[in-house]
Amino acid sequence: MRAEIISVGTELLLGEIVDTNAAFLSQELAALGIELYHRTTVGDNAGRLKQALTEALARVDLVITSGGLGPTDDDLTKETVAEVLGLPLVLHQPSLAWIEEYFAKTGRCMPENNYKQALIPAGGEALPNRKGTAPGVSVRKEGKWVICLPGPPQELCPMFREYVRPLLAAESRGVIRSRVLRLCGIGESALAKEIADLLANQTNPTLAPLASEGEVRLRITAFAESVAKAEAAIADLEQKLRARLGQMIYGVDDETLEAVVVGLLRQRGETLAVAESCTGGLLANRITDVPGASTVFDRGVVVYSNRAKEELLGVPAAVIEQVGAVSPEVATLMARGVRDRTGSDWGIGITGIAGPGGGTAEKPVGLVYFALAGPGVNLVREARFTGDRQQIKRRTTQAVLDLLRRTLLAARE
Amino acid sequence: MRAEIISVGTELLLGEIVDTNAAFLSQELAALGIELYHRTTVGDNAGRLKQALTEALARVDLVITSGGLGPTDDDLTKETVAEVLGLPLVLHQPSLAWIEEYFAKTGRCMPENNYKQALIPAGGEALPNRKGTAPGVSVRKEGKWVICLPGPPQELCPMFREYVRPLLAAESRGVIRSRVLRLCGIGESALAKEIADLLANQTNPTLAPLASEGEVRLRITAFAESVAKAEAAIADLEQKLRARLGQMIYGVDDETLEAVVVGLLRQRGETLAVAESCTGGLLANRITDVPGASTVFDRGVVVYSNRAKEELLGVPAAVIEQVGAVSPEVATLMARGVRDRTGSDWGIGITGIAGPGGGTAEKPVGLVYFALAGPGVNLVREARFTGDRQQIKRRTTQAVLDLLRRTLLAARE
Repeated sequence: MRAEIISVGTELLLGEIVDTNAAFLSQELAALGIELYHRTTVGDNAGRLKQALTEALARVDLVITSGGLGPTDDDLTKETVAEVLGLPLVLHQPSLAWIEEYFAKTGRCMPENNYKQALIPAGGEALPNRKGTAPGVSVRKEGKWVICLPGPPQELCPMFREYVRPLLAAESRGVIRSRVLRLCGIGESALAKEIADLLANQTNPTLAPLASEGEVRLRITAFAESVAKAEAAIADLEQKLRARLGQMIYGVDDETLEAVVVGLLRQRGETLAVAESCTGGLLANRITDVPGASTVFDRGVVVYSNRAKEELLGVPAAVIEQVGAVSPEVATLMARGVRDRTGSDWGIGITGIAGPGGGTAEKPVGLVYFALAGPGVNLVREARFTGDRQQIKRRTTQAVLDLLRRTLLAARE
Repeated sequence: MRAEIISVGTELLLGEIVDTNAAFLSQELAALGIELYHRTTVGDNAGRLKQALTEALARVDLVITSGGLGPTDDDLTKETVAEVLGLPLVLHQPSLAWIEEYFAKTGRCMPENNYKQALIPAGGEALPNRKGTAPGVSVRKEGKWVICLPGPPQELCPMFREYVRPLLAAESRGVIRSRVLRLCGIGESALAKEIADLLANQTNPTLAPLASEGEVRLRITAFAESVAKAEAAIADLEQKLRARLGQMIYGVDDETLEAVVVGLLRQRGETLAVAESCTGGLLANRITDVPGASTVFDRGVVVYSNRAKEELLGVPAAVIEQVGAVSPEVATLMARGVRDRTGSDWGIGITGIAGPGGGTAEKPVGLVYFALAGPGVNLVREARFTGDRQQIKRRTTQAVLDLLRRTLLAARE
């Protein structure tokens, strides 16, 4: 089955709200194996909504709308759907009773204009709204099917899950499943080259690379007649990708790099402490974004000044004087200092120039040194990142977390 | 002028990402006085993109696309625009040089498939991309105008502001100017009530409240025949709002709360050190996001364990034992400890329960204590935040920064 989505609302076209409903509905349709090739947004305007509905129904058999079910005069989705399908609007008594009860519960009388929320196109089915007054509508005529949902996400999402999903599942042949592999340590282009043969001529499952800040994602999507077959097709392609890309793949779906690192440390019963200069607390912040990080993370220090590096980590002033605060030596001493002083298994030290000021010809903005100290491990790396201050901070923490991840994996072997 | 927006990307139709670009562009067009009646989303499919472009160009004279400018074979926005307009793609030498330099800076060779990012429809103008490799394109033919922007919001937004907005403003009759006032310490509903008379019956300038994480923004937009007149109208309304809202307004436009706080400290020649438990480095990270923060920020410590609180800040184990780590006493001792040990003018201490685990009936998830120690100042506050772990961290740092800001402003008077 193929569907289209029409989002209705002038507030969308003014950019006052972000259309999260469209993303939610898209995900749900994909999971049901319903193909979606087109989404449209129009304002609260009968003429343009009519045109959008007519065009969509010419291309596909199922159209889902969101918005325009409110009580005011500019809410006209049901009116327009009824007109396009050539059906009259009729009163749906149970919906009217529900709306009246909704107002009674909050001690108010139902305003007269809420009456129109209980009207639905003749022959249609009202979809109950547990979170608001506007019922949804499902209406079919001559092979065409329109489902109208309310605009507020807190009403639309439960209505979809409870009433629409079962209706659609009963009609759908086949299912779609997808899985995202998350990679770091390789750029989008280099990755595309590495797996050019797998990207070419793909049909089912499909494979799509997506670039993100400091990482690349590979989405595998399979269409099959059953969940088991779709998952088997994904597993097959995933295995080929893993054989080729190995440790570049750090996680799947919603897994973050910091969550993977915290998970590896927890498995090993090991702890981590971090000493940050140019990243200014971002690394500690990312690690502590992981629920339960306290089992592996004891403390972090943000040592912006040379005095702080000396007092909190024991980095000798003489060394900083001699080689500069941004140097592999200082990164190493920071990593060792924070490890030794806390008794943690692993210590990280980061020093660099995040910009926009502070760069020189010899040590430009984006130059970063980061070091890792651990059991029998002493590593230091130089990197040159581009971007603004926040991107340099972000890319640095990404590289540091990846170094720790790979080191932990290697130590396991 | 009338415009349409076409968002391109299969990941949008799969619901993997929410289309924030469409909302951003819609807002910008509204502010420029350009009418937008229709938005479309299609996948990475040449045929459907071609159809959407053709339909849009039949309805309006300006189409803005986002996405599909990447280096891989399924990125085909420019190719399709060139085909629809009947123009060949030609190499844009400065863009190629920029892309090569982008890779050279990070010590990598440009992969061959990035070459296609430097191709633009003949006669078009390349729009520089400061944050990535894909240049944007502005191309006109026979009264029709297409602007292609990259998909990643961190690339699209600055490109629009720097290059597209001036191009569009030059075409628009009259000028639109807007100014955003940023507030904290008040919710959206309470604010709407406070300024109900100013929100009602507004025509020009318009006033729109927008809720955001831990703050509210008020956008004033004026349409006038000259910049001077638009700015005068904005200044007039801003003055009324400032008279009523006072210190709830912390900044304007892109000013962040952390930048305002760093600016106030710098004016006074004072320094700050922070001690964080539940916020895990987010406060230090926000402060160090401000360029030049090093002049006022000496260090921060993330003290997740009780031992770290004792060793780095001198919080007695006996106190923690007696009143618990999440208590006003410990927050106060953390703020004083980090101030005394660093000799900074101001010290901040934060302790709380970010969740999802660790809450009890007495001390639930979201309970936070934060303290401020300064010259003649010893403040401690209790707050109960809702939301997930990251929202609680974010809301806590917002409240802490606002407390410091208000304290610095009061000290000035």
